[in-house]
Amino acid sequence: MPRTKGDHEGRRRDVSAAVWRVMSARGFAGLTLRAVAAELGATTGLLTHYFPTKQALVEYALDLLEQRTLSRPRRDSGEGLAALRDALLDILPLAPEATESNRIWACSWDAALSDPVLSAEYARKYAQGRARLAERVARAQELGELPPGNSERIAAGAQSFVLGLVVQALFDPTGFPPQRQVEILDDYLAGLSAH
Amino acid sequence: MPRTKGDHEGRRRDVSAAVWRVMSARGFAGLTLRAVAAELGATTGLLTHYFPTKQALVEYALDLLEQRTLSRPRRDSGEGLAALRDALLDILPLAPEATESNRIWACSWDAALSDPVLSAEYARKYAQGRARLAERVARAQELGELPPGNSERIAAGAQSFVLGLVVQALFDPTGFPPQRQVEILDDYLAGLSAH
Repeated sequence: MPRTKGDHEGRRRDVSAAVWRVMSARGFAGLTLRAVAAELGATTGLLTHYFPTKQALVEYALDLLEQRTLSRPRRDSGEGLAALRDALLDILPLAPEATESNRIWACSWDAALSDPVLSAEYARKYAQGRARLAERVARAQELGELPPGNSERIAAGAQSFVLGLVVQALFDPTGFPPQRQVEILDDYLAGLSAH
Repeated sequence: MPRTKGDHEGRRRDVSAAVWRVMSARGFAGLTLRAVAAELGATTGLLTHYFPTKQALVEYALDLLEQRTLSRPRRDSGEGLAALRDALLDILPLAPEATESNRIWACSWDAALSDPVLSAEYARKYAQGRARLAERVARAQELGELPPGNSERIAAGAQSFVLGLVVQALFDPTGFPPQRQVEILDDYLAGLSAH
């Protein structure tokens, strides 16, 4: 039977879902053509059609992670300090899907830190994230919700804070349930507002 | 020639140094018997004497990382808030050796997050770290250097803050030179002191 465009796209979606499940369960260390093939109920041979090399599979996985991160729903409850808080809450692993994405991000740091090209790309992404946070910090300062100060340095602090909270919550979900993460973040924001 | 105990210990030190260099340069994804053998100028066969499996090599590498972390020199400039600041500075990648250890820690998260036993062990270590920070927070509160508040929650926030700063500094050493890391940390401590 001839293959249609729909078949092809459906198959790509299946492959993406299988790659995602393998990364989520086993990290990048466990992301192999064989594991994805088993997850998909397909042969390794079929998989090499999509991913001729391990490197191609890793690149695909990283793209998938970025797409899912960019397309996730965002909080939008106001401007200034409320907008800064929203952006930080959007990063935290407060729900299963965000936990899964964060886990995969943290797992990708091994490969990323050991590859100069990837490492530079990650540095660029984090710098963009800080720039977006800095705009919200500056707006909160204009509104008098945050004291004056170097908005970029404050944004770098805020990004550090949530990234580290992510790491701790990933390792210790029982010790860092969603409510506690939010309390710890609100302590931090109270500190920013006070000085 | 018969092997002496000194030979054996010298060889173990060489093996440890080779494992460390491979981890540092290639992360856990690049930590293979073959890479360690090449670094050591030895055969893979000799290496299997030390590490019968890949898993044994990873466990050895993690032990080595923990030993080096435990035995690193520590700052000791006072008590209370000064002691809290020292403990946080001790974690940051402010010098080449600390950068190397932090890089290896961050690279180990991939394997650790995907292994329930390792994951529980990491959670326990971070909890111990938080408990030590909480003691320093409580002492700073007694001394009136920090306002009253839940010292464990403040410690969890402080640990989050430095962990995330580590991650950012690893990816972007140019954007986060030592002085900037210290400034960002001091902003954070000023926020803690103020509210």
